[in-house]
Amino acid sequence: MAKPKKTPRPKAQTPKGFRDYFGTEVTHRAEMLNKIAAVYHRYGFDALESSGVETVEALGKFLPDVDRPNEGVFAWQEDAEGDKPGDWLALRYDLTAPLARVYAQHRNDLPMPYRRYAMGPVWRNEKPGPGRFRQFYQCDADTVGAPSVAADAEICAMLADCLEEVGIARGDYVVRVNNRKVLNGVLEVAGLSGDDKEAERGIVLRAIDKLDRLGPDGVRALLGEGRKDESGDFTKGAGLGETQADVVMGFMQAKRETGTETVARLRKLVAGSEVGVQGVDELQLISDLLAAGGYGPDRVEIDPSVVRGLGYYTGPVFEAELTFEIKDEKGRARNFGSVAGGGRYDDLVKRFTGQEVPATGVSIGVDRLLAALAAKGRLEAEATGPVVVTVMDRDRMADYQAMVAELRQAGIRAEVYLGNPKNFGNQMKYADKRQSPVVVIEGGDEKDRGVVQIKDMVLGAQLAQEASHDEWKERPNQYEVPRGDLIKAVRDILDRTS
Amino acid sequence: MAKPKKTPRPKAQTPKGFRDYFGTEVTHRAEMLNKIAAVYHRYGFDALESSGVETVEALGKFLPDVDRPNEGVFAWQEDAEGDKPGDWLALRYDLTAPLARVYAQHRNDLPMPYRRYAMGPVWRNEKPGPGRFRQFYQCDADTVGAPSVAADAEICAMLADCLEEVGIARGDYVVRVNNRKVLNGVLEVAGLSGDDKEAERGIVLRAIDKLDRLGPDGVRALLGEGRKDESGDFTKGAGLGETQADVVMGFMQAKRETGTETVARLRKLVAGSEVGVQGVDELQLISDLLAAGGYGPDRVEIDPSVVRGLGYYTGPVFEAELTFEIKDEKGRARNFGSVAGGGRYDDLVKRFTGQEVPATGVSIGVDRLLAALAAKGRLEAEATGPVVVTVMDRDRMADYQAMVAELRQAGIRAEVYLGNPKNFGNQMKYADKRQSPVVVIEGGDEKDRGVVQIKDMVLGAQLAQEASHDEWKERPNQYEVPRGDLIKAVRDILDRTS
Repeated sequence: MAKPKKTPRPKAQTPKGFRDYFGTEVTHRAEMLNKIAAVYHRYGFDALESSGVETVEALGKFLPDVDRPNEGVFAWQEDAEGDKPGDWLALRYDLTAPLARVYAQHRNDLPMPYRRYAMGPVWRNEKPGPGRFRQFYQCDADTVGAPSVAADAEICAMLADCLEEVGIARGDYVVRVNNRKVLNGVLEVAGLSGDDKEAERGIVLRAIDKLDRLGPDGVRALLGEGRKDESGDFTKGAGLGETQADVVMGFMQAKRETGTETVARLRKLVAGSEVGVQGVDELQLISDLLAAGGYGPDRVEIDPSVVRGLGYYTGPVFEAELTFEIKDEKGRARNFGSVAGGGRYDDLVKRFTGQEVPATGVSIGVDRLLAALAAKGRLEAEATGPVVVTVMDRDRMADYQAMVAELRQAGIRAEVYLGNPKNFGNQMKYADKRQSPVVVIEGGDEKDRGVVQIKDMVLGAQLAQEASHDEWKERPNQYEVPRGDLIKAVRDILDRTS
Repeated sequence: MAKPKKTPRPKAQTPKGFRDYFGTEVTHRAEMLNKIAAVYHRYGFDALESSGVETVEALGKFLPDVDRPNEGVFAWQEDAEGDKPGDWLALRYDLTAPLARVYAQHRNDLPMPYRRYAMGPVWRNEKPGPGRFRQFYQCDADTVGAPSVAADAEICAMLADCLEEVGIARGDYVVRVNNRKVLNGVLEVAGLSGDDKEAERGIVLRAIDKLDRLGPDGVRALLGEGRKDESGDFTKGAGLGETQADVVMGFMQAKRETGTETVARLRKLVAGSEVGVQGVDELQLISDLLAAGGYGPDRVEIDPSVVRGLGYYTGPVFEAELTFEIKDEKGRARNFGSVAGGGRYDDLVKRFTGQEVPATGVSIGVDRLLAALAAKGRLEAEATGPVVVTVMDRDRMADYQAMVAELRQAGIRAEVYLGNPKNFGNQMKYADKRQSPVVVIEGGDEKDRGVVQIKDMVLGAQLAQEASHDEWKERPNQYEVPRGDLIKAVRDILDRTS
């Protein structure tokens, strides 16, 4: 007789590109989000939480010529209802596309201008790589319906406040501001503004966006004839002449000692271009508005070398960079780099309503920021694992529960050991694993004498590492106290070790 | 010539069954989750955050005989890699299935027992209805690997603490505890324990689970021959005789004045059944452990009429009920009812590892709890919309930015008006919509004289509603103060109105 076929056991695995977060990985991020939310709120931004699921139609990733929505999003089709095929739904890939949908849907009820913040997971259907996950957090603030660059300036100030609030010291970061309109002016001056020059402008924008990766020489090559990369592949360039390329390179390298000098330099570069001059004026105005609020060049500066996103944004562009060095995996010092970015985009809801509505916003990379704080040693390790009350006599669980209840009511994190109490060694191993600062022991003898044993785990670990025998005897890490002094004795140790 | 075909505009709509949350809807929930997390943490529970996406295999909702995963979850197939068909992925439908996967995957690194809490959205692919959404929050705490009912008792105490922490007063709630084993004992006594009685047991369990909806008579009918519902449909019953049905009904109605009496009553009911006696002992022990921690019958009580989930759980079952009345949509008083539930389930990871691992946990319905607090008027409306600084002279935006910067640095929520400043009426309408407590006005004249106008919007609204002309003159809601006193003047109003 054939054996009954067994269903194989399912694999206990996260899907590829997803991960689990444990303990302080979760709480550190939650605390950071709370702090940032408080700053956003103080600036008058209101919370918005849309769901993780949107229609593909609203997200705008649907390509009409393919069966399935565009790559890059997780999407699925709802069941058909009768003859009507089901809608395609998808997980949001950022928080801006849902903002556009929300604003278009609710615009009659929302204040105008509308300042909103949003934080939560987003999903990307991309090839996962080291440190690249398919679900991650975004933490955005945007102002919709405010055409004035005062809105951009405010967001730069808010970004600086957020960084300081989460623990980046002044001087350890700078918010750098650039403006797409200045680049447009530069392109005009370089003779690239005509309708027939769209292809060249595209190549220039893409080249500029690669400054970080390719360096000035690489960009220069792409502005000219083209560039052969290390693998031998050739990327065709924009074909600019020497002088034209000089103007574009001059833009990216226009930063001078002071903002005033930088602005003067830019003004010269775009002389004759209306849009260019407008861009320079905007930079000047943002700088003035920020200075009026006390946000000087130690926190926010004009920097034409900020090129990331210039292809996407339509006006001011900003980026927050951490200026301290950290050691990379090979022990080399390097700048930590960008932790937030944003800018102005002026067609937020046009897809939905046909109206142009200006918007400007910022997205803070909380995971990058957490990594930065960790690298600087500024993320407190959790001060205390729980106090562990051991179980010496399983019939007296009620006594132990009373102890933890007392401790918890005193605001002290505490647990009773809930595993099999037979082996005391296992209880101590558990306390170690929990990084308990204090273990409480009450056997029958202690119970009779009205005392409890207090074991100072932090001192114990220190003594085990460093102490001579005499010191060990002098500073015992285990002692008894009257049962009535339990809270006080535990708190003494916690106060000393935290 | 044919007109170029226009792509129709996308609809700005949430997908069916999803919704957006604005402002205090978001922050009230976030505050509630923070408070509950703090209690969970104090009890020694560690945070766990898994991603929203799991493999269908790990979730255990895959039916091998159908093309698509089971109804009830949102699922999609990954792209194939070469010959290998893509995995099916799905959005998690609760936080327990991911806990099982996490525990099986990481069990060698986790403490044993493992106390964890998790909070976040879950998704159900169900027909949406009024107040029923396809994405909602869960907020769970579970202890894995602790067979002792001390773990269950602890969760009941923690649940009581959570409710008080979020603002449910003692006396306004009760955590009710029952035990599946007692029911098993009852079934045994009623002669329904044999292998050949599985069908009957199933009908009895389903009948009991409907007590809330059908009432005792309905359940009684289902225990006997069966029940015809209002539409005329007939549901076949378990076919129990009078005496058998009496035993089962007696179980659900065994609650007496005191816990001691209830336990005594239950003990009588299950006399002769080993598992039944064990269940009664467990109830007694939970009650004793809780009493030792100070959690008496004013907070936690034994109540055999808690039947929800008895079909699913294997030992203790608990439910938190709010005991105050609220008015329903028709103005009738009714009990608010259940806001949290949980119990013991002893096969958490068996699917993955083959091992039985005991677990017990609770899930708090944060949205229900928020609704309860709102019904009791215990959710503070946001104390203050932002202070609005109006723009009287668009060339002096820097002055206004300096004012909001000062206010924010003093910890006061403040905005400058960022819309078109031409029409002052629109600025005041905006301030109204923002529920601003204070509007600040500084025109050229005020600037020259070194003062600002302060408009008390709360008093203004009161006066407009109630005041006589004389009162209006006596208590002006707009007055000027020296520019240097801006912060003080604003704070005075905020202190008075909050």
